[in-house]
Amino acid sequence: MNRDVNDSTSPIGVFDSGMGGLTVLRALHERLPAEDIIYFGDTARVPYGTKGEKTVRTFASQDAGLLVDLGVKMVVVACNTASAFALEHLRETMSVPILGVINPGVRTALAGTRGGAVGVIGTSGTIRSGRYQEGLAAGGLEADRILVQECPLFVPLVEEGLMGHAMTKMAVEEYLQPLRDAQVDTLILGCTHYPALKDDIGRFMGPDVTLVDSADALASAAQDRLAELSLLRDDDRREGKLEFYLSDIPWKFQEIGARFLGKPIEEVITVGLDEMEAFVDNND
Amino acid sequence: MNRDVNDSTSPIGVFDSGMGGLTVLRALHERLPAEDIIYFGDTARVPYGTKGEKTVRTFASQDAGLLVDLGVKMVVVACNTASAFALEHLRETMSVPILGVINPGVRTALAGTRGGAVGVIGTSGTIRSGRYQEGLAAGGLEADRILVQECPLFVPLVEEGLMGHAMTKMAVEEYLQPLRDAQVDTLILGCTHYPALKDDIGRFMGPDVTLVDSADALASAAQDRLAELSLLRDDDRREGKLEFYLSDIPWKFQEIGARFLGKPIEEVITVGLDEMEAFVDNND
Repeated sequence: MNRDVNDSTSPIGVFDSGMGGLTVLRALHERLPAEDIIYFGDTARVPYGTKGEKTVRTFASQDAGLLVDLGVKMVVVACNTASAFALEHLRETMSVPILGVINPGVRTALAGTRGGAVGVIGTSGTIRSGRYQEGLAAGGLEADRILVQECPLFVPLVEEGLMGHAMTKMAVEEYLQPLRDAQVDTLILGCTHYPALKDDIGRFMGPDVTLVDSADALASAAQDRLAELSLLRDDDRREGKLEFYLSDIPWKFQEIGARFLGKPIEEVITVGLDEMEAFVDNND
Repeated sequence: MNRDVNDSTSPIGVFDSGMGGLTVLRALHERLPAEDIIYFGDTARVPYGTKGEKTVRTFASQDAGLLVDLGVKMVVVACNTASAFALEHLRETMSVPILGVINPGVRTALAGTRGGAVGVIGTSGTIRSGRYQEGLAAGGLEADRILVQECPLFVPLVEEGLMGHAMTKMAVEEYLQPLRDAQVDTLILGCTHYPALKDDIGRFMGPDVTLVDSADALASAAQDRLAELSLLRDDDRREGKLEFYLSDIPWKFQEIGARFLGKPIEEVITVGLDEMEAFVDNND
């Protein structure tokens, strides 16, 4: 299934640890409606956010390898944890441009902050990798204006559909109180699941705090990069095709899919784990 | 590393999707202190409870294959979801006796119920597999005396160490209210993580409800089965060796390990996923 030519008519590839990255697919599709996009969700091995660096790097290599094999012209790493642990490795080993979700979020936050502190929330893996902190510091933010917080319960709460629920309100308060006390004016939602909690988080943080949704920032960065490389597909009349690959069909698949994508997923191709393994030899 | 002889001096193998099965290891070690036990936790691909039947069966075949390759005399499937989806398959394909966690729990519940209803709580996969329901029905329980409930947030709450926390109390109330209303007199804790919530669950259900911890039931069943097969290692003076294999070293590894095992894990051998994959060809 290897397509040799990567020109502007090739699809964009997006991968995520699971279904959360569909928010990124959605933002890409809205911004670049003429582009074909192939999505891969590693639902057999989700989540990545609680796992070790080496494991996440191996998974990410296989995920990107699958997309490259399918002939994509660019790989978008929708998963924050994979971006944190594997981006450099993928750039060194893959034959197509690789775009991560962290730098676009960092740039948006730096452009938006009004002199206050910037908060970052994410999985344990993302926060402990230190990548957001490094990016914000490299952009000139002093250490005392960078506040981070792991929010490990947010992913399961979203997957259970508990937006607006009393349990979610309690978790939001528990995790975000220190950030509110520190008067952050900008908060990076550093995980693809978190935009689903925008209302809960926004209500608690108050109207003066800007929430940075990495999906929008990433879609804009992808557009710029493709234009720069003359790989942009820019045809007003074309409606791009979306293709979905998953390593497992999870319970509540349709429900969770619609929650992130905003519409039902019609067809899915399942990728066996033996097939995934085949990509590691090429890239690792 | 293949040991050919499976006699009473061979170790017992225990596998689980992650660290939760350490509660089973602990119960086995307490009941059979002279036995050597090898534990494998598939921490790179945890959890199993939200994933599809075929995926769980593939993972379970690899997990059991690893243990058989290490020379165990029996494989104990500590994970409820793996027991639900893969037990028959493992029995057909493996060369050693396979013990699951569901039947021992069912038998204990049937022996303990005092004419009321029996409740079962577990992951989505375990509950939807219908295995507990089948087992209880086969034991003579009428359908209207069997109540089941998926509790997907219990695993992340335990992994975050939130026993006794207000969020946990709220989740317990939300999930268990229907079982309390139906006046169950016996409740099967159908997931290796749930015994950590015994206090929260017991307080809500009241002192008249018997909580069935599958770990104890399983340890007792393992003892019976080994005796039956003349494979029991029964030496009062011997202190059995415990060995730990994991496919990923997760964040908070020591903390979570101690929570389930009751003491720190001193040494761990990491098993690469490429190594895990090697076992699927033999068994699938």
